[in-house]
Amino acid sequence: MVNFLLIDCPDRKGLIFTITQIVFRNNLNITSNDEFVDRQQNQFFMRAELAGEVHPAALVQELSAELPPEANIRLVPERKKNIVLLVTKEHHCLGDLLLRHEYGDLNANILAVLGNYAELESLVSRFGIPFHHVSHEHKTREEHDQEMSRILADYSPEYVVLAKYMRVLSPAFVAQFPNRIINIHHSFLPAFIGANPYRQAYERGVKIIGATAHFVNSDLDEGPIIAQNVIQVNHTQDARDMAQSGRDVEKIVLAQALKLVFAEKVFVSNNKTIIF
Amino acid sequence: MVNFLLIDCPDRKGLIFTITQIVFRNNLNITSNDEFVDRQQNQFFMRAELAGEVHPAALVQELSAELPPEANIRLVPERKKNIVLLVTKEHHCLGDLLLRHEYGDLNANILAVLGNYAELESLVSRFGIPFHHVSHEHKTREEHDQEMSRILADYSPEYVVLAKYMRVLSPAFVAQFPNRIINIHHSFLPAFIGANPYRQAYERGVKIIGATAHFVNSDLDEGPIIAQNVIQVNHTQDARDMAQSGRDVEKIVLAQALKLVFAEKVFVSNNKTIIF
Amino acid sequence: MVNFLLIDCPDRKGLIFTITQIVFRNNLNITSNDEFVDRQQNQFFMRAELAGEVHPAALVQELSAELPPEANIRLVPERKKNIVLLVTKEHHCLGDLLLRHEYGDLNANILAVLGNYAELESLVSRFGIPFHHVSHEHKTREEHDQEMSRILADYSPEYVVLAKYMRVLSPAFVAQFPNRIINIHHSFLPAFIGANPYRQAYERGVKIIGATAHFVNSDLDEGPIIAQNVIQVNHTQDARDMAQSGRDVEKIVLAQALKLVFAEKVFVSNNKTIIF
Amino acid sequence: MVNFLLIDCPDRKGLIFTITQIVFRNNLNITSNDEFVDRQQNQFFMRAELAGEVHPAALVQELSAELPPEANIRLVPERKKNIVLLVTKEHHCLGDLLLRHEYGDLNANILAVLGNYAELESLVSRFGIPFHHVSHEHKTREEHDQEMSRILADYSPEYVVLAKYMRVLSPAFVAQFPNRIINIHHSFLPAFIGANPYRQAYERGVKIIGATAHFVNSDLDEGPIIAQNVIQVNHTQDARDMAQSGRDVEKIVLAQALKLVFAEKVFVSNNKTIIF
Repeated sequence: MVNFLLIDCPDRKGLIFTITQIVFRNNLNITSNDEFVDRQQNQFFMRAELAGEVHPAALVQELSAELPPEANIRLVPERKKNIVLLVTKEHHCLGDLLLRHEYGDLNANILAVLGNYAELESLVSRFGIPFHHVSHEHKTREEHDQEMSRILADYSPEYVVLAKYMRVLSPAFVAQFPNRIINIHHSFLPAFIGANPYRQAYERGVKIIGATAHFVNSDLDEGPIIAQNVIQVNHTQDARDMAQSGRDVEKIVLAQALKLVFAEKVFVSNNKTIIF
Repeated sequence: MVNFLLIDCPDRKGLIFTITQIVFRNNLNITSNDEFVDRQQNQFFMRAELAGEVHPAALVQELSAELPPEANIRLVPERKKNIVLLVTKEHHCLGDLLLRHEYGDLNANILAVLGNYAELESLVSRFGIPFHHVSHEHKTREEHDQEMSRILADYSPEYVVLAKYMRVLSPAFVAQFPNRIINIHHSFLPAFIGANPYRQAYERGVKIIGATAHFVNSDLDEGPIIAQNVIQVNHTQDARDMAQSGRDVEKIVLAQALKLVFAEKVFVSNNKTIIF
Repeated sequence: MVNFLLIDCPDRKGLIFTITQIVFRNNLNITSNDEFVDRQQNQFFMRAELAGEVHPAALVQELSAELPPEANIRLVPERKKNIVLLVTKEHHCLGDLLLRHEYGDLNANILAVLGNYAELESLVSRFGIPFHHVSHEHKTREEHDQEMSRILADYSPEYVVLAKYMRVLSPAFVAQFPNRIINIHHSFLPAFIGANPYRQAYERGVKIIGATAHFVNSDLDEGPIIAQNVIQVNHTQDARDMAQSGRDVEKIVLAQALKLVFAEKVFVSNNKTIIF
Repeated sequence: MVNFLLIDCPDRKGLIFTITQIVFRNNLNITSNDEFVDRQQNQFFMRAELAGEVHPAALVQELSAELPPEANIRLVPERKKNIVLLVTKEHHCLGDLLLRHEYGDLNANILAVLGNYAELESLVSRFGIPFHHVSHEHKTREEHDQEMSRILADYSPEYVVLAKYMRVLSPAFVAQFPNRIINIHHSFLPAFIGANPYRQAYERGVKIIGATAHFVNSDLDEGPIIAQNVIQVNHTQDARDMAQSGRDVEKIVLAQALKLVFAEKVFVSNNKTIIF
């Protein structure tokens, strides 16, 4: 049985010693360990994998007693995360995640998929996963998000994955899942504002197209970045071809980000990530 | 003896036939040929490598007579381009180009280097190339650019390469070298506006850092893109480390772009490039 | 209606003129055109996209009459290719292709899937595509391949895609589909011979893992290369993790290769590819 | 003042606690820390950055007393490494390292350059670094290596960097610098044996060309891998162009590898590297 111990707190001398002493006292073995000190913020981050029989409440209490009062301490058993996907009409990220889920490569249980359109229901149902069509039509953003929240409440997901969910979420919805909503979006050099970015990218003749996976905190495209990658494109590709290339990089980057998050390798601090 | 024939004009049926007929009539062999039609603009682009003895004036006249009046026709012998570099204080692109030049890998003659600071004179002089220190202090941008223009006039460069020249050029200067000034700059996902972008990239926790080589037409960072690439970074790199990674990708991307331009493989059309 | 005209023949002066004259005479417009001359082999390659009403037999006959007798001339209408997939037990390439097929991104009709194991039948059937379990047990390679050939005969596929088909094909089978069988396999730097290459890659501490898509001519891993790419790995990944990273790059590279082949952009010559 | 503490030993419970206790007792602060356990080998690796006043002998003695007897313990102050470069005729890695050295980006002092040809003396001398021409002609490999060894003895380098040194080193020479000789070589998918690999790569139509930086232990191209990367190539590039692309990736990969090694981030274990 492996547990992940995740601690971040203001840095001071002796932290690792203090922590590992408690771990040793509890007769646990550290099979992997990473620390990082953000010197700009003077913040200490540590992630350890613990082998052995853990008494969670007692261990966290012991740690709290000896660490600074601001310390964030999480002890999480190694297990699949429970997640729900939000989608609109694009299939590429959804399909990729359904396949990984089907064959045990996702490290998560997809409890359900919610779509603001019904288009993807057929795909989801083939994999035996509940699909909820929650139309946004004739509703305010808040009403729509509340309807999704009610459905999500039945599933209690640990993470909400926006697998090309193309609507902005309301602050109230986002606030329910701090650092637990993950989004994927295309990224361009230079950045393009406004509608139809692939059209703009084509007209600007960009040579690479990127994708960024990130947590959603408030602004849809602006939370802490988890993973990024790019793919080469050229002038022979029209906007539709570029979008197709973009889909390939999006689905791989989203899957990479989820792998890191579900393995408890990602800290969020000051709108950026520390990834071990 | 190889010549490059570069033609772009509004598309119509039979263009390649018309052109290759004239080439054949002139007893020339086409050893490489690329065409592309931008359907959005209905514009035809063609680049051919011609082997055989060319009578340039006659050939261009024949082509002009049979092609649409808007046709741009260029016939350029294969040879090294004459270039001048503009620099400020950063050495990485300059040093890389000096080395490529020294060993015949640049496909260009570096006639001179102009710097608005004197820092890089020592490096340039080791490679036997004239360095002109043209300080911008106590001068308006226009005065400074005019002083550079006077020096450039002695060299008649075909291309001006901004090898980390960190000042905006005046419209009058840029207008002297249409699609003949090439710049390299760092690029980020997301884009960062304002001072010290590497500091911003660090604080935002970006996972890739890019570089873009492009022609300068008006706005310093906004001309037609020639080449782009990225490098992976992570949270353990501070702003200084990220800048160092950025320098590696900048120097390679600039060299790749120059290679394409100097081989006459790049068309510019509507603020984007067609690259064969 | 677009047709692809594909020609390769020994190079000589005036080939493009000759070809485009015939095209022009037939009242066709060339909307895209690429040529390349392999100077080492003195071989000319040309791919043109023709718009307009084509009379195929007549056009090919005209071209044959005026081109060198060794010329290979193909005139292919733009349309989806008919393909059959061969699989074993690994799902990642198969699943990716089924999704692309389902949503019209593959440029091909998957007529059927043949597996030497039954494992993937469940996945294939969800997409409404016939699956044939052709076990190799208690059969010689030739018997097994003949059984597959008989099933394939009913489908008359233009291409056979080995989507992680883990058996060597008999020369007789391969000979039925010259340059029409496409395989994907992992690639390492350095190369590893023998069983369990991911285990070897892990033990050797490689930092990148690659994938190569290629035509199968005789030796399974040795035909003309169509596409290659790599992904970064590190020491924290065990052999299983490396294999998972490898699967991501394999499925993307295979899809890229198929896109090129199905768009008639790939010539094979002397065990290498020319890709326009 | 920062010191790097590097420990590897058989894994057992409490190692981090034991080590950090001693560090804490010595009034030192750990500003960065990485551990990794190779479960296959049951080997523990740890790298810590220590801030504070260190008494090296005492600290190492304390650690030795409490760690397993097989433990390798190194305590290294943060400082530039002293290195010597070996070259033949190719300039690209040498030039790149000379530039980084000149501008303080290398984290090392280049004490001297030894070449078995005199070609690169002119370049080296421009950077004020001693160049020794040690011809291999009319000498056995052992005689030649001994002559280099005598010169190296005067410099006492911590690392010997083969910046495109194109000869195999004798076992006796290699044995003098265990895990302290670093080589860069091109890498291909598939691998090519024998002379002129770029010619072979061209004839095989490879789509990517790679470079591998590694320690040299015995066989020239076979030691523990430090860094690898690739660059895309295509059929329009002849063997000479591919070699030029290869040079770009080689020089960047070598510099990346040296950066890791000189920052004491690389452990070698069982012919592979652990890189923090």
